[in-house]
Amino acid sequence: MNERATETLPARTTIRRLPEKANHDRAMLYGIVDEAYVCHIAFSVDGDTHCIPTAHWRKEDDLYIHGSNGSRMIKALSRGTQASIAITLLDGLVLAKSAFNHSMNYRSAVVYGQFEIVEAAAEKQAALDLLMDKIAAGRKHETRPGNTKEINATRVLRISLAQAAVKVSASMPSDDEEDLGIPVWTGILPLKTARAAPIRCETGASVAVPDYVRDWAD
Amino acid sequence: MNERATETLPARTTIRRLPEKANHDRAMLYGIVDEAYVCHIAFSVDGDTHCIPTAHWRKEDDLYIHGSNGSRMIKALSRGTQASIAITLLDGLVLAKSAFNHSMNYRSAVVYGQFEIVEAAAEKQAALDLLMDKIAAGRKHETRPGNTKEINATRVLRISLAQAAVKVSASMPSDDEEDLGIPVWTGILPLKTARAAPIRCETGASVAVPDYVRDWAD
Repeated sequence: MNERATETLPARTTIRRLPEKANHDRAMLYGIVDEAYVCHIAFSVDGDTHCIPTAHWRKEDDLYIHGSNGSRMIKALSRGTQASIAITLLDGLVLAKSAFNHSMNYRSAVVYGQFEIVEAAAEKQAALDLLMDKIAAGRKHETRPGNTKEINATRVLRISLAQAAVKVSASMPSDDEEDLGIPVWTGILPLKTARAAPIRCETGASVAVPDYVRDWAD
Repeated sequence: MNERATETLPARTTIRRLPEKANHDRAMLYGIVDEAYVCHIAFSVDGDTHCIPTAHWRKEDDLYIHGSNGSRMIKALSRGTQASIAITLLDGLVLAKSAFNHSMNYRSAVVYGQFEIVEAAAEKQAALDLLMDKIAAGRKHETRPGNTKEINATRVLRISLAQAAVKVSASMPSDDEEDLGIPVWTGILPLKTARAAPIRCETGASVAVPDYVRDWAD
């Protein structure tokens, strides 16, 4: 296990509730970030706080996002506005004997900090290639790469995952001793993200089906 | 369609990018809120902006959350701190001819405003019953209801959905005319939330399996 995972975290990222759910294992963090396609970003501009979903990807210990130069969020984050990013995977509903002890199983990561702009052209292109790799391995060699106008209209931002706080709940219901005799079903109703059968667009109908499409569905 | 859905929205909830994706249909909004189990809430305390996932449910035109009296988020939101709540359902990856035109299909709602505390005991209990109804229809009659200590330790908050902004993207890739000849597969790699087989806890092993458990899995 990475030593960074056991560092003392600053107050803001300390798990204040349910400390037994805290899990700072870096492999778990990377697993959550890589499995999810979308994160939620909180930031404040002119006194208003916003929560916006956006695609993300990871390289080593950095989280990446991208967007239009003109978007409010990209402009605010490019100025170094403090941000909080949450990534959440819901794994199931946990049904207990008492209403109060019902809960959810989930894996989540929350990151605090400031994004930085990925300025250098080669680095920016490499980052965008990684996003394509996350979507479909090998596809970056098949599609038309971004031209100068497209690349210039896109901003790529990056933030360190070094201070990410991970919370994992993966357990059966925790019931009070005195409730155990109540005759009600207990357990987990699992939820997961599933991959359904690909839908082919007519503009790609005459081409061979690539492996990442054929192997997509569960 | 509800007339409120066509009201002019305040600047903060105006869809600034991709206006063609805006869809203010109230039925779509309710569908998104009801299908998702988890929302993300952005709020600021003492100059720090946070993004926290939490369970939510809906009654008519209000969104509800609950939590421990002692949690930082519940305390901040109870004080009337401005919040932004995002609910996002990812429906698929959209694969285009060019890297730039790749996108995602999704349904999302974003709400701005201030939560209010559901104070009255009967109203609070009714709200918590609705959460249980969302988890499993009829289960509120089978479990032990919250006792005074549990109810007092829980706070229920509500916020109006009247100003919610809905964005929906549900389309095939939109490719540039000059890219149509590129020999690469195009279409949608669909994603959906699936319900897997329930996992029974030994504390409920001797009881009959209720309908909401038997009918859970897809």
